[in-house]
Amino acid sequence: MATDLMPALFEPAQGEDITIPMASNPLSPRVSSFLAEANFQDPHLVVDLEQVLLNYQNLDQAMPQAEIFYAVKANPERQILQVLADSGSSFDAASLNEIESCLTLGIDPDRISFGNTIKKQRDIAAAFQKGIRLFAFDSAEELGKLAESAPGSHVFCRVLVNCDGAEWPLSNKFGCSMEMAEQLMIEAQKLGLIPTGLSFHVGSQQTQIHQWGLALGQIKKLYSSLKLRGITLTHINLGGGFPTQYTTDIPSIAAYGQGLEFALEQQFGDQIPKVLIEPGRYIVGNAGVIEAEVVLVAQKQEGDERRWVYLDIGIFSGLAECMDEAIKYPISILGKETCKEVGSVILAGPSCDSVDVLYKETAYQLPLNLKAGDKVHIHSTGAYTSTYSSVGFNGFPPLKCVCI
Amino acid sequence: MATDLMPALFEPAQGEDITIPMASNPLSPRVSSFLAEANFQDPHLVVDLEQVLLNYQNLDQAMPQAEIFYAVKANPERQILQVLADSGSSFDAASLNEIESCLTLGIDPDRISFGNTIKKQRDIAAAFQKGIRLFAFDSAEELGKLAESAPGSHVFCRVLVNCDGAEWPLSNKFGCSMEMAEQLMIEAQKLGLIPTGLSFHVGSQQTQIHQWGLALGQIKKLYSSLKLRGITLTHINLGGGFPTQYTTDIPSIAAYGQGLEFALEQQFGDQIPKVLIEPGRYIVGNAGVIEAEVVLVAQKQEGDERRWVYLDIGIFSGLAECMDEAIKYPISILGKETCKEVGSVILAGPSCDSVDVLYKETAYQLPLNLKAGDKVHIHSTGAYTSTYSSVGFNGFPPLKCVCI
Repeated sequence: MATDLMPALFEPAQGEDITIPMASNPLSPRVSSFLAEANFQDPHLVVDLEQVLLNYQNLDQAMPQAEIFYAVKANPERQILQVLADSGSSFDAASLNEIESCLTLGIDPDRISFGNTIKKQRDIAAAFQKGIRLFAFDSAEELGKLAESAPGSHVFCRVLVNCDGAEWPLSNKFGCSMEMAEQLMIEAQKLGLIPTGLSFHVGSQQTQIHQWGLALGQIKKLYSSLKLRGITLTHINLGGGFPTQYTTDIPSIAAYGQGLEFALEQQFGDQIPKVLIEPGRYIVGNAGVIEAEVVLVAQKQEGDERRWVYLDIGIFSGLAECMDEAIKYPISILGKETCKEVGSVILAGPSCDSVDVLYKETAYQLPLNLKAGDKVHIHSTGAYTSTYSSVGFNGFPPLKCVCI
Repeated sequence: MATDLMPALFEPAQGEDITIPMASNPLSPRVSSFLAEANFQDPHLVVDLEQVLLNYQNLDQAMPQAEIFYAVKANPERQILQVLADSGSSFDAASLNEIESCLTLGIDPDRISFGNTIKKQRDIAAAFQKGIRLFAFDSAEELGKLAESAPGSHVFCRVLVNCDGAEWPLSNKFGCSMEMAEQLMIEAQKLGLIPTGLSFHVGSQQTQIHQWGLALGQIKKLYSSLKLRGITLTHINLGGGFPTQYTTDIPSIAAYGQGLEFALEQQFGDQIPKVLIEPGRYIVGNAGVIEAEVVLVAQKQEGDERRWVYLDIGIFSGLAECMDEAIKYPISILGKETCKEVGSVILAGPSCDSVDVLYKETAYQLPLNLKAGDKVHIHSTGAYTSTYSSVGFNGFPPLKCVCI
């Protein structure tokens, strides 16, 4: 399980024997000293706002032609939204609540896209009433709702791109076929809406830059076809998917910028429409670290090769993206970061649920002298953690998020 | 994914083409009229306390020899705990918070078991200080913590039973080997604790009654072996696993009672130790119904055989046990319960997450005239729903629970 992930883009976990060394990445001095002073007694996510800002600036620099719509769902903390708003970001909201979070901060409704293709009619109406004028859709029924409750708004259709066979779509929850998109965009105009753009998504944490190029080839055909039918799109929404650094190397953001620029020029020449992107993970992922605690180190039978290590955080308290071991976070142990005597562990959460196992196929290497009470740092956890956290499964409190 | 489920005990979802007809089970008149009056605008779980009481009484009657420890994690709503406390139930707590919930209601600490084998040392100390004297463990490190922070307490060791090959353990997160259990029980006595019992768990929603018999055979050997070494156990904890009614038939609770009685007599003759059981799902499962709403009915391309039906509740807002389509809840549509013109749908949640699909391999049959705004009843959802709910993924609020 993972957020909008196409699992095939990751190393398959099942049956493979992936070994992950203990992370050496040290915390920045300010995060480190903050944690030392705070001395938390339960799991906390600490987000470094300076890193958030730096990520935003790097992305903005790498893709100067793109308007950045931060995917609020990645981490909706007020201070994160504020930093990004101050830097000129726009916002991609998945729900009315996310829209309201943005508006409360004084963000102009013109800078907010209601990007979920699944919306209640009354939520569309409420968003429209609050000034939102940009909406996503991917079906006739949704278009009908928009025409009724957000008349005259700009709408963009999410299409299902077919990147290259096996690696693509494991889920077609979002996006309609190219053919249907064409019909719906024409219908949108008839219904009094402004068919402005097309969007697609190549999968979260996408490390193959050429996937955007492949998708843009298909988008261009639809774009041209619509132009012939009198509809000139003013924007292309490239979605999100820009990766953050976990335990494997990723291309630089500059490489993404160059790759996208090349693909856009290849398809659109000197008539490139306005480009929107919806980064979430890239902006906040590596800005966050979770400090948790070892609750128990156990052997379950004589001669067990791997120790069971239970943390006070698990699948249901923030680490949902460890489901199927999709995301492999770098992990280190406070005070034992440079320990050379390490061994394989199975990492699990604290709940009475057998599903609450973080890494089993993936063999993390942790110190042999690991023991209950040791503090654990789970790095690059700024995105898709705190909001996934359950309200209180097994009575454990949700993951707290602190921005510094 | 599912709560403590052994997936092999369910119909495999992958690759199979399971068709589930629309549920005909009507709501009880009191639940029905409550919902009609409340007219909720977002998903709510309604728990019928009369049904909770009835379930408790039926179980108590079917297994008069067993002391019932309600697994608080299944649904920790205060009113549920109160009804059960008033009926004489004891409680199995997974965390200090769950213990505190019980104590706040005036439940005697003698009636509470700290049943999680994964506990922080300071939580053990706090529980002990509050009067808790019964603790689970399954490893040497945990035993050491108990000896230090809960001196003189009764402890029971969770063992990993090997029911029958392929159907068993997919996870050995809980329980140690029989050999290790024997050593640890002896060690417990040396450490000044009172080694009182053994526990095991045959998997949640276990429909094969003979699994308890198989497990008890192994438990008996350990029991006898410990007796030879001077340790006479006073209780056997049979865990939970008693099923609630979903979309397939289950044996009656009387059949479980008879099966367990037979197995206990077979193993222990007329010297049956005290028996503890930890039901959760059985007590609250069928007492709950979720009322949700259809947000969107969509076709994604021409000629699609199955409609996509998006609800305002999904994997991350309460229906976590739909992961891997493990639990197949009965589903009906308000006002269209008897509709004969139905067709297959893919059911999904409202979040911008491709993982948030409830049923895809399983083809639920829902009315052809289904449309946005229709109210959906998801039955038998009293257990393991509201607490799994995320705090606000995508900005959607957690599932609310109302007891009537």
